[in-house]
Amino acid sequence: MRAIVIEDKQLRWAEVPDPEPGEGEVVVDVTAAAVNRADLLQRQGHYPPPPGAPVYPGLECSGVISAVGPGVGGHHVGERVCALLAGGGYAERVAVPVGQLLPVPVGLSLVEATALPEVACTVWSNVVAHDRLRSGETFLVHGGGSGIGTFAVQLGKALGATVLVTARAAKHERLRALGADVTIDYQEQDFVRVVHDVTGGRGADVVLDIIGAKYLARNIEALAPNGRISVIGFQGGTRTELDLGALMAKRGSVSSTSLRARPPAEKARIVSGVRDQVWPLVAAGVVKPVIHATFPLSEAAEAQRVLESSDHLGKLVLLR
Amino acid sequence: MRAIVIEDKQLRWAEVPDPEPGEGEVVVDVTAAAVNRADLLQRQGHYPPPPGAPVYPGLECSGVISAVGPGVGGHHVGERVCALLAGGGYAERVAVPVGQLLPVPVGLSLVEATALPEVACTVWSNVVAHDRLRSGETFLVHGGGSGIGTFAVQLGKALGATVLVTARAAKHERLRALGADVTIDYQEQDFVRVVHDVTGGRGADVVLDIIGAKYLARNIEALAPNGRISVIGFQGGTRTELDLGALMAKRGSVSSTSLRARPPAEKARIVSGVRDQVWPLVAAGVVKPVIHATFPLSEAAEAQRVLESSDHLGKLVLLR
Repeated sequence: MRAIVIEDKQLRWAEVPDPEPGEGEVVVDVTAAAVNRADLLQRQGHYPPPPGAPVYPGLECSGVISAVGPGVGGHHVGERVCALLAGGGYAERVAVPVGQLLPVPVGLSLVEATALPEVACTVWSNVVAHDRLRSGETFLVHGGGSGIGTFAVQLGKALGATVLVTARAAKHERLRALGADVTIDYQEQDFVRVVHDVTGGRGADVVLDIIGAKYLARNIEALAPNGRISVIGFQGGTRTELDLGALMAKRGSVSSTSLRARPPAEKARIVSGVRDQVWPLVAAGVVKPVIHATFPLSEAAEAQRVLESSDHLGKLVLLR
Repeated sequence: MRAIVIEDKQLRWAEVPDPEPGEGEVVVDVTAAAVNRADLLQRQGHYPPPPGAPVYPGLECSGVISAVGPGVGGHHVGERVCALLAGGGYAERVAVPVGQLLPVPVGLSLVEATALPEVACTVWSNVVAHDRLRSGETFLVHGGGSGIGTFAVQLGKALGATVLVTARAAKHERLRALGADVTIDYQEQDFVRVVHDVTGGRGADVVLDIIGAKYLARNIEALAPNGRISVIGFQGGTRTELDLGALMAKRGSVSSTSLRARPPAEKARIVSGVRDQVWPLVAAGVVKPVIHATFPLSEAAEAQRVLESSDHLGKLVLLR
């Protein structure tokens, strides 16, 4: 088969060996894959695949099962699926543990479905399973224009939260169309002040953050009593001062997770939660995949350039 | 009545007005009260009582209800109770919102019961309600000799956790008798190393910490995947560097809470959880109050001096 390989921090479309399905795995013939910011880190050598994972980039895909490994029940050749991957989505075929397979949501094409597994599992595991965002709470989403952001806005709204989102001004109108109650231009406005203005001084109950160090103190300032901050990206660095006294004054918590490093059993639990709690919202049209543009799989490098520019809104998808 | 008042950062036994029970409150005739580290901060002027709370120190007491305010059902004059207070325990009488009353656990004297409300509510709200310590997990308790520590060791054990505890060597034998699986002499041993040695490199699932800044980075090092750190004291300062990348590598969380600042409805929810989940363990003798010494209420200053020395094990109790 062909896949995107990384050579000297560049992406190259190359002939590589076909994957074989291991115990408890299927092979998916890839129809589409999506690009994630972690793929850029992997290209730069900062985010190696976990042991045993496919070495090619790509953390999610959709396609059709073409082979079934030993010990697999309940799946068959010809079945349309999408999947959360530990790697290998930028390829014509990929082996996937069955716990990371999801059905294609009712009403969606395979191409649309590929835009969902990584963002749905990331946002659900942090915001629902860990931070327990509830109806009536205030949810602050940083980086609203990203794949994560566009999904988090919709899921927060579907859960009954008031959703505030930071993004470049050019993206505000589309974020409001996705359900954001308040859009914040982080280049011109102080998000702490806007959050307190909008909530009558109370603050945000849950913050989903991709900035990290640069925003930590201000995220705590923006927090409501008993508020929860989930940091899932470090575009603003990893190390900074934490004032535990300020955190205690909010009775707050700061957590940080990544999906890829989780062992397969944890991934399977998250995938199962997403299937039960998120997929019905997708089938109902309440949460929609947001695709900015599609590219041929062989032109993944160009898709990564667009992602790096941060001019997009939603996901960049690669088509076989 | 008489109460301990704070004058020029000193405690004085003085004649003060009697409390009146407000709406939803009872007055408790105090039999015993207990001393908490927060009382020392209040004496030094660092921890003022929240608005509306009694101004005298004392965050817990036991005694007999002597008056019932308007709108109170289910309580009567002559009832023996213990209580979580926002202040005012160092006094002959104190007004208490009914949501903060607890029955005297079966089999305990009023004096023993006064040693429980603050530690039970603090440890339960952090370790059970928030951090969800589960059977089979590893629980690291810092400051094992304190009232919080001696309670946390017993509760962790009762929940089925493996309990590791840091304390001065002189306290180790008694902490093992309370159920600690591993005692760590923080003056001689590196707790991070001991935790990893004991857990085969896995780390602690839940850390209950009273040190704060000085231990934060090492607590993260000592953490197991998906581990949770609750910081409830700052004996080692409040401000320090946080490495969010190190936190993400553990998929960890850091939270910090205090009990006193919580609004009455939150306190009532915690008290209710303690009554349902902790009181049966006390009645069964699985979790016991640990009282280091008792003092006449008028000699609260001497009790605070003993607490400050950190030579005690368990609670210091004031008797009327």
